[in-house]
Amino acid sequence: MPRFLVVGHRATTSSTFRLDDLTGTGGRLDVLVRCITSALLVSHGARRDSVLTLLLLGPPAAPRAVRFDGARIQRLNPDERSTAALVKRALETPLTAHVWQPASPGIDIAKRNLARVLDEEATGRAVILLDEAGDDARAVELPADALYVLGDHEGLTEEERAELDRRGARRVRLGPLSLQADQAIVVLHNELDRQREKR
Amino acid sequence: MPRFLVVGHRATTSSTFRLDDLTGTGGRLDVLVRCITSALLVSHGARRDSVLTLLLLGPPAAPRAVRFDGARIQRLNPDERSTAALVKRALETPLTAHVWQPASPGIDIAKRNLARVLDEEATGRAVILLDEAGDDARAVELPADALYVLGDHEGLTEEERAELDRRGARRVRLGPLSLQADQAIVVLHNELDRQREKR
Repeated sequence: MPRFLVVGHRATTSSTFRLDDLTGTGGRLDVLVRCITSALLVSHGARRDSVLTLLLLGPPAAPRAVRFDGARIQRLNPDERSTAALVKRALETPLTAHVWQPASPGIDIAKRNLARVLDEEATGRAVILLDEAGDDARAVELPADALYVLGDHEGLTEEERAELDRRGARRVRLGPLSLQADQAIVVLHNELDRQREKR
Repeated sequence: MPRFLVVGHRATTSSTFRLDDLTGTGGRLDVLVRCITSALLVSHGARRDSVLTLLLLGPPAAPRAVRFDGARIQRLNPDERSTAALVKRALETPLTAHVWQPASPGIDIAKRNLARVLDEEATGRAVILLDEAGDDARAVELPADALYVLGDHEGLTEEERAELDRRGARRVRLGPLSLQADQAIVVLHNELDRQREKR
């Protein structure tokens, strides 16, 4: 089961963002919302074996992690607005201590920074960082159960890369051009689908 | 320069659709809007060599064709809402006879049915139909200047397939799973990018 982690540096951690202004009041939440649908949907259905975690690092309550589990998710549609409404609902969920709280079916939220998310998501799994300077994805045997890590439109910071390096992250590239995060997930899924078909 | 054509069977041909209800009042215009950004945007920029035509076949004024030219387009952002606003503006453009009318920079609109769009877009170009029963895209030399044709969430009708067959359309598949139209464009672009890099 592939897992994805996308870091949103400016993404809002308040539920008060406006669904008709995801780019502004949402702190480019539109980028992350498209990652949800890219990771979990194909034509007419969900990818039941995918899990996506969004790390929201914008004001006012950073950090927050929201996890979307393809096996359990319901009512996920491909459009941005209704998907952003699921994030809004997650951000409305009261949090106590550092426990994952269920927000809606298949969606959980917690107070988590990158190190803590990696402790949970990366333990016992290969960590693969999508990076234009990496090895060609088509020439690498991609572990089906790895954690694939992507930055938002701003990429990842040096500190974040160092945190990933401490966990032995391997860098993999998807092609000649730099893609948006949601596009990268689509291409990566296609490669995983093909490698799975060949096995 | 690759060209893309996406057929939206229920997509509205009225500018009165609501930007906060693209799925309902827009007749699943959300599907087509995501195709615009998949075809024309990469990270931090436009694909200047791509052209996308949307064929809108929903009420009340079908058919309409809207063309997005990556070389000339301005102010295209990756979020659905602002991209849908460009389609709305195109649909507000008064049309006379069968002439393409400029709606905004890089966006033109005309009264066109599939046959007429193909007369213009497919003449002198290979026509490639994205189809799960086709040849593997990675095993085919994809012409850089072909017209790539995709259906919306409902696929293409028998009549539309026959129209494409009359123009010698070749069927090509992208992978083991059936993808959403915008996802298919992303995977196709990646393959075109890679084949171009190798040449």
